[in-house]
Amino acid sequence: MSPKITTELLKQLRQVMKSPKYVQEPVQAYIVPSGDAHQSEYIAPCDCRRAFISGFDGSAGTAIVTEQHAAMWTDGRYFLQAAHQMDNNWTLMKMGLKDTPTQEDWLVSVLPEGSKVGVDPFIIPADQWKRMSKALRSAGHDLVPVKENLIDTIWTDCPQRPCKPLITLDLSYTGVSWRDKIVALRSKMAERKVLWFVVTALDEVAWLFNLRGSDVEYNPVFFAYAVIGMNTIRLFIDGDRMMDPAVREHLQLDSTLEPEFKIQVMPYGSILSELQAIGAGLSPKEKVWLSDKASYALTEAIPKAYRYLTPYTPICIAKAVKNSSETEGMRRAHIKDAVALCELFNWLEKEVPKGTVTEIIAADKAEEFRSQQKDFVELSFATISSTGPNGAIIHYKPVPETNRTLSVNEIYLLDSGAQYKDGTTDVTRTMHFGTPSAYEKECFTYVLKGHIAVSAAIFPNGTKGHLLDSFARSALWDCGLDYLHGTGHGVGSFLNVHEGPCGISYKTFADEPLEAGMIVSDEPGYYEDGSFGIRIENVVLVIPAETKYNFKNRGSLTFEPLTLVPIQTKMIDVNLLTQKECDWVNDYHQKCREVIGAELERQGRHEALRWLIRETEPLIRAQ
Amino acid sequence: MSPKITTELLKQLRQVMKSPKYVQEPVQAYIVPSGDAHQSEYIAPCDCRRAFISGFDGSAGTAIVTEQHAAMWTDGRYFLQAAHQMDNNWTLMKMGLKDTPTQEDWLVSVLPEGSKVGVDPFIIPADQWKRMSKALRSAGHDLVPVKENLIDTIWTDCPQRPCKPLITLDLSYTGVSWRDKIVALRSKMAERKVLWFVVTALDEVAWLFNLRGSDVEYNPVFFAYAVIGMNTIRLFIDGDRMMDPAVREHLQLDSTLEPEFKIQVMPYGSILSELQAIGAGLSPKEKVWLSDKASYALTEAIPKAYRYLTPYTPICIAKAVKNSSETEGMRRAHIKDAVALCELFNWLEKEVPKGTVTEIIAADKAEEFRSQQKDFVELSFATISSTGPNGAIIHYKPVPETNRTLSVNEIYLLDSGAQYKDGTTDVTRTMHFGTPSAYEKECFTYVLKGHIAVSAAIFPNGTKGHLLDSFARSALWDCGLDYLHGTGHGVGSFLNVHEGPCGISYKTFADEPLEAGMIVSDEPGYYEDGSFGIRIENVVLVIPAETKYNFKNRGSLTFEPLTLVPIQTKMIDVNLLTQKECDWVNDYHQKCREVIGAELERQGRHEALRWLIRETEPLIRAQ
Repeated sequence: MSPKITTELLKQLRQVMKSPKYVQEPVQAYIVPSGDAHQSEYIAPCDCRRAFISGFDGSAGTAIVTEQHAAMWTDGRYFLQAAHQMDNNWTLMKMGLKDTPTQEDWLVSVLPEGSKVGVDPFIIPADQWKRMSKALRSAGHDLVPVKENLIDTIWTDCPQRPCKPLITLDLSYTGVSWRDKIVALRSKMAERKVLWFVVTALDEVAWLFNLRGSDVEYNPVFFAYAVIGMNTIRLFIDGDRMMDPAVREHLQLDSTLEPEFKIQVMPYGSILSELQAIGAGLSPKEKVWLSDKASYALTEAIPKAYRYLTPYTPICIAKAVKNSSETEGMRRAHIKDAVALCELFNWLEKEVPKGTVTEIIAADKAEEFRSQQKDFVELSFATISSTGPNGAIIHYKPVPETNRTLSVNEIYLLDSGAQYKDGTTDVTRTMHFGTPSAYEKECFTYVLKGHIAVSAAIFPNGTKGHLLDSFARSALWDCGLDYLHGTGHGVGSFLNVHEGPCGISYKTFADEPLEAGMIVSDEPGYYEDGSFGIRIENVVLVIPAETKYNFKNRGSLTFEPLTLVPIQTKMIDVNLLTQKECDWVNDYHQKCREVIGAELERQGRHEALRWLIRETEPLIRAQ
Repeated sequence: MSPKITTELLKQLRQVMKSPKYVQEPVQAYIVPSGDAHQSEYIAPCDCRRAFISGFDGSAGTAIVTEQHAAMWTDGRYFLQAAHQMDNNWTLMKMGLKDTPTQEDWLVSVLPEGSKVGVDPFIIPADQWKRMSKALRSAGHDLVPVKENLIDTIWTDCPQRPCKPLITLDLSYTGVSWRDKIVALRSKMAERKVLWFVVTALDEVAWLFNLRGSDVEYNPVFFAYAVIGMNTIRLFIDGDRMMDPAVREHLQLDSTLEPEFKIQVMPYGSILSELQAIGAGLSPKEKVWLSDKASYALTEAIPKAYRYLTPYTPICIAKAVKNSSETEGMRRAHIKDAVALCELFNWLEKEVPKGTVTEIIAADKAEEFRSQQKDFVELSFATISSTGPNGAIIHYKPVPETNRTLSVNEIYLLDSGAQYKDGTTDVTRTMHFGTPSAYEKECFTYVLKGHIAVSAAIFPNGTKGHLLDSFARSALWDCGLDYLHGTGHGVGSFLNVHEGPCGISYKTFADEPLEAGMIVSDEPGYYEDGSFGIRIENVVLVIPAETKYNFKNRGSLTFEPLTLVPIQTKMIDVNLLTQKECDWVNDYHQKCREVIGAELERQGRHEALRWLIRETEPLIRAQ
């Protein structure tokens, strides 16, 4: 992959940074955050401003351009990718390494005295604004909002904001009606004595109204805001999407309703002025609840004294705990997904030795098999189909320039998932279609031990996920190996494949405690730059555990794998496993055989079934 | 132990809270924090204001008294003790439990509108002031500094502030002279572009000048502040302690010195006015470095724009990494300490069956044996000598009312340590002098597994201690057991037995990464209310580890136990151990036998030596 040449673009950006047409005063630095106005992780093409200016299109990264410098902050998943995609105009700032300066420290070190640093107030989250602004001010600089997005001014062929039709989800999928969700939300608002709640995250709007969209690739969301009062519901959304009779029926737009459930539909662009009007009309002690990650622009619309900011909104927390309709849907989705992967791996086993399967062909084939399954909507993220050295690029996506042919000599890593109407999947398997080396098997087995250590962990109710992260690393650490990413993230129910407020990572501390019904991924890995990548990922459901002493009735939790795809036994060095770990693998494979085997049978996929039976033969450990 | 009756005291306190003699305006609530003006954990009797007003004398707790209520916040170590020591005037707020309100939330819920909340500005750390003040203000209340401490106004027989002689430590103990420490500090100051550094923590003053004191029981510190400029050194200290020729010689007070190493000695009480003078004389860009835990009073002396606040000071961080003189001293101290404990346990084994040994007698005997060792100074904390149900009170200290007789039917837990001139010790052993039940052995063995999991852990350089906490709990969690305290704390070198900035606890996140040379405790436990307590604690040194793949030259770390006291094998259910754990115990006991055995031999303590040999017989695991 060759880097994007950005010399001309940076020149143009530096010009508009000084142009009175766009800025009141020249800005000496301009920040280009990763997100959109909803602080989404995955964004629409029109919002890919950081990728446009730098060439680096990973899912996380912040660019800062000064008159002399251009720098990109990203995390361990993307060090290699960013280095490949950016030209020499850019300095890569490797977050998480000891010597890497923070954005604030770096700015202070390079800016001339009394500088102005510009940023789009709709894109920067309020909490980041606050931190950045404080740090800059204490060094004599100013963070200033630049109303017009400066990237947009130089992005001549910027695509339009998408506005696709909506999908309505009935009770059989959601378990709870949108009316009941509003009632529950208002009761949380009453508890905290707030009058208004502003829904800014796209997945929160979608979840609240039991609607889905396709405005953002891989994420079944649509561009909208909502403002919920104790007696009013305002939905800010563009296009003719509210003309769809199914949507009107679903939202009861034409029914005679109690006024507190009557939804007022307003233009997407009117959110700021509506919020300003609400802010201007507040009496003392009347509060408006926002996420502290809402944009600076919307947060500022409410005078400071009236703001009630929390790191996690009540919707975010409610959404994370799946009800029985949702978990049953997730189970169904994972069974279908496993069927598709059994087909794929069976096909790969036959085709790879012929030398005709590239990373892109394999990814397309995976999508093809998935799309044959009921209620398939789209992929849940860009398939990471990588072989050999490409596997070490943690969030690699094959493109023609890098597309490698699978062979019997290299490890193949496939991290993929789909959106089904009943659930979201995300699974990684690492396979070898020839004979893996002893070292590859050794590394794979340590990763597997870490995967099992998390999956089989038992922990008291109230434990936060970050406390489990080291379990995934212990076997690797013992041999001097590690991986530079977290171990797990929350997974939505036919929603974003990454969601808060829970996860399993050494990097967070403010995660909410794990609760029965939450769904997270368990995905330790090991990456050898220039050689191979290994990752084993299941999506797991938090469930109550049975323990001998039950924490004096505090209760305990553990995980149940929803993903049921064989883990390649050829890659396992059985003698590095304990008997308990060996039993875990065998029990897991027995369950794959029973549950996925029955579905393969039902779907008449006999060859894939034979593959499954073969791949789930019990391991036997030398005593 | 009967609770302190506080009805009359609270009445008096509520009177002075309204008295114009002490407060400009009446305060509706008064906060009594735990610490002293130096934010010490262990405090002098004159600073035990919270214990005076409430009766609760644990090492951590904050009291808040309003016109109607009196409430005490403390953590899991002290729930039982606080409940025992306080009368019905007090509500116990159990920190760490889900439903316990924060102090701020509780105040907001009980205070009438527009209340004033008072606190002594010398006692409250600046970071706490800020958080509390912000929360109160947003609810319409005010946090106000009350100059005269209101507890002192009603504490008629308050003891005097101690002012004891100093001990000088030469290079053989400290490894680095105070001059070199000043040079290193000034280079850190230059790096951060600060002109002044204010030393507020007592152990930091002591460490910086290679002096020790005995103003606070168990902590070899003395009441003093220091202010270090780029060319000046000011030491704020009272009494005639600077008249001691040894001290004058050590600090070179009478020598002709380069001016930048000339120490100006000033009265302890003049720190505030000196700081105010410094603050008033600063030019723009001139900064003063303080801990963000320094008192609100001292922090306020420096105008906000000139403050440079950090959670850990450069002294705190330098002090934590022990040099070779210090680690050698710590090794010597731990050998002597182990000799004393071998004598004690041998004595207990003979005496306990007679039914004449109480918790207090056992604690006194431990002190007696320790005091026979070279360079013994004092204990490093109040000995926790507890048997049966008293063992479940995590920071129990035997007093005549609770003093229980050791017997062959109950578990005995001894958590004790000493200050030697060459090092500080802290060790817990849990013993049974009869026949432990299967359940007691089971619990003990889980705790031991957790202890070993931390002690034997290998982890990459740069890992923070809190990431190791779950290793200590995993075996307990598997059976539905847990303990409500952290797993380890930093330990000073002939200094405070608890010190930052490292530790091993699920409760912290802002700890500094572990580095070779740091010293922490490893002390998981299990407590069964009303029955028994189990804890196994060693002090361990962070050392480089050898691993197969060495984290791509990032390097790795592990722990070496400094404590070398047998772990009672009678309490171990060997069949619950893995072979690796069993080997760990046997290797550890082999080292105890070699190192402590040689010293017992040298000291002619033959009976204790025989006890040691007996107690370090290898475990044999059924295959």
